[in-house]
Amino acid sequence: MLVLGVDPGSIATGYGLVEKQGHRMVCIHSGVIGSSKKTPFHERIHHIFQSAVEIMNHYRPAELAIEDVFFAKNVKSALKIGHARGAVLIGAVQCGVKIHEYTPLEIKKSVVGYGRATKEQVHTMVQMILNLKESVTYDTSDALAAAICHLNWAKYDIRK
Amino acid sequence: MLVLGVDPGSIATGYGLVEKQGHRMVCIHSGVIGSSKKTPFHERIHHIFQSAVEIMNHYRPAELAIEDVFFAKNVKSALKIGHARGAVLIGAVQCGVKIHEYTPLEIKKSVVGYGRATKEQVHTMVQMILNLKESVTYDTSDALAAAICHLNWAKYDIRK
Repeated sequence: MLVLGVDPGSIATGYGLVEKQGHRMVCIHSGVIGSSKKTPFHERIHHIFQSAVEIMNHYRPAELAIEDVFFAKNVKSALKIGHARGAVLIGAVQCGVKIHEYTPLEIKKSVVGYGRATKEQVHTMVQMILNLKESVTYDTSDALAAAICHLNWAKYDIRK
Repeated sequence: MLVLGVDPGSIATGYGLVEKQGHRMVCIHSGVIGSSKKTPFHERIHHIFQSAVEIMNHYRPAELAIEDVFFAKNVKSALKIGHARGAVLIGAVQCGVKIHEYTPLEIKKSVVGYGRATKEQVHTMVQMILNLKESVTYDTSDALAAAICHLNWAKYDIRK
C-alpha cells in the first residue's frame, strides 16, 4: 500500500510517498510544495491544492496520512495552517484518497517511540527507517513520519 | 458588476450575490452552504469548495468579497475558519474570480457607518439596503455585507 504523508504549511508543505516492501519501508518520492512569501496568500493556498492533486493523480496513493492539528502558536498561525491543511484535504476528497488523521503524539510515538520527541529526533529516525541517502527538510521528514505512522497502525488494522 | 460576498464557516458558510442597478443595490441570490455537524470535517470542507465552485460557475460573479480574518475566539476555531476560508479562496482562484479582502471594521463601517457595529445592526442595514422581503440568517447577512462593502469601495476605485 502506497501512503502519502503530508505536513501542511502556507509557505512550505512537506510531502512524502512511502510503501511497505516486505518488512522494509521505502520512500518512493518526497519533496516540498513551496511558495515565495511574496506570492499572494490565496495563490499560495491554491498552489498547495493544485500540487496535492497533481501528486495524487501521478502516484495514486491508496491513503493519505496527515497530522490532526489542535494546536498552533497563536490564532494567526492557526488560521494560516487551517487554510493550507484545508487545501490538502479538499485535494484528497477530490481524488478519492482516504484520509487518516493522527495526533502529533501518535506520530512521534510511532516513529521515535516517544510522544514528546523533538523535530530533530523525528528527522533522524525517519532518515534511518527509510534509509534515505540524502537529508530531507524538516517539513518533508514530518510528512514522511505521518506516512510511516499510518503504515505502522495499518499493519495492526487497529484504526481501520 | 455582480459581486459574490462570502462569510466562511465550517458548519455554515453564508453567501450572497449583489449587483448595482443604477443607484440601487440588488440581491440576485443568497443562501447558506451548510453541513451537519455529524458529517466528517474533511467532507464539510470539500462541500464548501464544491458548492462555491458551483455558485461561481452558475452566476459568474466578476469579483469575490470576503472578510480578512485576523481574529478568532481561540486557536481551535481559527483552525476551523482557516479550512473553510481556504476552500472558498481555492474555489475562486479555480474559477478565475478576483478576490478582494476587507477587514471586519471596513465592512461594518461601509454598511452601518460604524466600525464596531453588532451582528444585529449589520443584519438590519443589509436587509434595508437590499430591500429584502424575507429575513436572512446572520451568516448570509454577513456575506451580503461584504459584497455591499466591495461595491461601495469599487465605486470610488480606491482599492482597485
